[in-house]
Amino acid sequence: MQKVPPRTLSGFMELLPPQQNKMERMLEVLRETYSSYGFTPLDTPVIESAEVLLAKGGGETEKQIYRFTKGDSDLALRFDLTVPLAKYVAANYGQLSFPFRRYQIGKVYRGERAQRGRFREFYQADIDVIGDGKLDITNEAEIPAIIYDAFSRLGLKRFRIRVNNRKILNGFYAMNGMSEKAGEIMRTVDKLDKIGAEEVRQLLIEEIKMLPCKAENVMDFMAICGTNAEVLEALDRYRGMDRTFDTGLDELKAVTKYLKDFGVPEENFAIDLTIARGLDYYTGTVYETVMTEHPEIGSICSGGRYDDLAGYYTDKTLPGVGISIGLTRLFYVLNEQGLLSDELITAPCDALVLPMSEDLSFAISSAAALRRAGIRTQLFTEQKKFKAKMSYADRIGVPFTVIVGEDEIRDGVLSVKDMQSGEQSRFTPEEASGHIARIIAERQKCSVICEN
Amino acid sequence: MQKVPPRTLSGFMELLPPQQNKMERMLEVLRETYSSYGFTPLDTPVIESAEVLLAKGGGETEKQIYRFTKGDSDLALRFDLTVPLAKYVAANYGQLSFPFRRYQIGKVYRGERAQRGRFREFYQADIDVIGDGKLDITNEAEIPAIIYDAFSRLGLKRFRIRVNNRKILNGFYAMNGMSEKAGEIMRTVDKLDKIGAEEVRQLLIEEIKMLPCKAENVMDFMAICGTNAEVLEALDRYRGMDRTFDTGLDELKAVTKYLKDFGVPEENFAIDLTIARGLDYYTGTVYETVMTEHPEIGSICSGGRYDDLAGYYTDKTLPGVGISIGLTRLFYVLNEQGLLSDELITAPCDALVLPMSEDLSFAISSAAALRRAGIRTQLFTEQKKFKAKMSYADRIGVPFTVIVGEDEIRDGVLSVKDMQSGEQSRFTPEEASGHIARIIAERQKCSVICEN
Repeated sequence: MQKVPPRTLSGFMELLPPQQNKMERMLEVLRETYSSYGFTPLDTPVIESAEVLLAKGGGETEKQIYRFTKGDSDLALRFDLTVPLAKYVAANYGQLSFPFRRYQIGKVYRGERAQRGRFREFYQADIDVIGDGKLDITNEAEIPAIIYDAFSRLGLKRFRIRVNNRKILNGFYAMNGMSEKAGEIMRTVDKLDKIGAEEVRQLLIEEIKMLPCKAENVMDFMAICGTNAEVLEALDRYRGMDRTFDTGLDELKAVTKYLKDFGVPEENFAIDLTIARGLDYYTGTVYETVMTEHPEIGSICSGGRYDDLAGYYTDKTLPGVGISIGLTRLFYVLNEQGLLSDELITAPCDALVLPMSEDLSFAISSAAALRRAGIRTQLFTEQKKFKAKMSYADRIGVPFTVIVGEDEIRDGVLSVKDMQSGEQSRFTPEEASGHIARIIAERQKCSVICEN
Repeated sequence: MQKVPPRTLSGFMELLPPQQNKMERMLEVLRETYSSYGFTPLDTPVIESAEVLLAKGGGETEKQIYRFTKGDSDLALRFDLTVPLAKYVAANYGQLSFPFRRYQIGKVYRGERAQRGRFREFYQADIDVIGDGKLDITNEAEIPAIIYDAFSRLGLKRFRIRVNNRKILNGFYAMNGMSEKAGEIMRTVDKLDKIGAEEVRQLLIEEIKMLPCKAENVMDFMAICGTNAEVLEALDRYRGMDRTFDTGLDELKAVTKYLKDFGVPEENFAIDLTIARGLDYYTGTVYETVMTEHPEIGSICSGGRYDDLAGYYTDKTLPGVGISIGLTRLFYVLNEQGLLSDELITAPCDALVLPMSEDLSFAISSAAALRRAGIRTQLFTEQKKFKAKMSYADRIGVPFTVIVGEDEIRDGVLSVKDMQSGEQSRFTPEEASGHIARIIAERQKCSVICEN
């Protein structure tokens, strides 16, 4: 028979079991963290009508979209989780309570040029809070505080959530008579990290045709740095020249204060005036998150405040604030950098029960007892020699083997072997459950990310 | 601005928060159950190369497949989780340990004709055990035993796993000289539940052109029923006429015995000779599962034993046994029939903290304390009157509100209101955590399915 090579498309992540188990742990931590703050889970279709999905225009992503027909239907795969949220909230407005807090962790699709570390199918892990008509500023601090909590629970330490406010930028450009060029300027300034200040200055003058003194103003403004208090103080000097600027500064001060109230340490968040976020629907606070020792990978978690989530679907004004973790890329980078824990149990089970006699009754009831104690237990029933059974246990990396031979059945005990220490002891099924559960719980305490 | 109606495609399930929370509970129970038996989670792409996905030919599903091009690539959306598993095992053969036990819960796509209760995007929740060259018969009993456990944990009671063996059928047709027509006969017999014995008999004679006496043999065979012991006894009378039949009967006896050993009550599994499963890769034990009071909805969980998982990708012989729960359809039916619990907490949070003063510090630290106790806690920071806040609490159906006013801050306590009983008491944050956690845990004990 002619064989088809069993390949997976490039740009699509498919993991071996140990890695997949680490990914599952990350998904679980995110689900738990998001839930713990009162976000309701949402699950929208991967396929939507192209008309609905592209209502707003896909912008930069439009050419990357997977779009196709089936019968008479013009369909597309979702390219983010925000547009489906907008559709959902507009469609179900009357049945939702506002503020509506939802999380969604799901795969999205962008047919980008394939390159290492770039994915065409990737998980986004989003939270958004949507208000009906208005939404309090505290949400703009709680959202990054939740991300701080999520990353901390994952074990990530050296990251910084960079915060800015679009009103400050818009106000600054307005007070300098540069509003028309604001978009171009922001896109250029966005390259600061990559190409440096001198190149940016030149681009502003040569490509955007700014007067050198105006370009200087921009460069001075973008150079404002220091502690959050110092940056806010520097910004205060621009106060009184533009109303939008002043509002933005008030908001940024409030967000900075509340971030502290929410317990986010200053080393994990920083005001950064160079952050703008390309998407034109952000209207206030914006976020990007960098791994401080790996700035080269860009933002691992971004978002912001928008005044109008679903204007292309509904007349209702639905302001909101949201943030999205690019989970697949984050996982890829952590794995590449060796930052995923080796301590975590990644075997398919915690205990492997090895029956050595034909009668399986005691092995089966013992396995059930272990499971009741929360121990993931595999019953190994293949007809193999003892050595082959132990070699399977080694290969899957199971923490404990549980041997059930004629002797054990006669005495009503289990021979439990700790595969890490090599120690073997006989226990009743109840003792064995307690013993194994305790050690597993201890080993599972370590976090999935291990930055040391 | 011209609005686009925010519609979701027909045949795609999109749930409101309370229902989605029930669905999440089902997903969680399945993940936990599958994990508890030592199945490793797998996550394969939704999009595959069409050549890979259709290597074997799509069979009946081929015309339902979502297939499209992107650039030069001929792509398709997965229509089940078995073909991706075959690809995965063939591609990673050298890095996996066998028996390889994996679970996968994911969405699959079939562009079926839209009709009520039929979905084009739906979850399958699969487990499979794959052997390298061979695989013990006990697996064919453990798989349905795990499904019994999963359904029991979900709260489903009145279901029956119907078990048969393809070798018995093939052997029976061989001993009657009907092997060539076996496929047609099985497809006709499959309609027994729907159209009854008399119609089936007529179809066998008129459409399949069987001699009436041969049709009678088939009808007699298919009419064998009773307790499992009675059916096995009746089958023993056919023993000795065909080797395949005899092997199948031995297997069925072994599976029946082990199912008992695994603790599956006789009322939840039954030998049923009419089960064949259309898919031609099943070679031994086959399963279907019916809700005994809703036979009209067909099988909610099906699968079986196959001798060659991945023959179109690899020369390796990879026998396996697997089963798949059609989760989206099951959820739909349970919801329609009113069988999903009303007791389960489906609010986005367990406790809603309502700060009544400007300083949020105590409210924030109290919310954090509640979360540490495992209580899903939302902090409500919108500027609203007390009445509006309580009305929000009512609408989201939160079990507890936690009021933090000036008095509470002064005394370092929280006013906790049980929204079900209306009782309100003052507690320290630690006491409040214990009190709420206890009641929530009690309420969450109920299972998601409630058959009464």
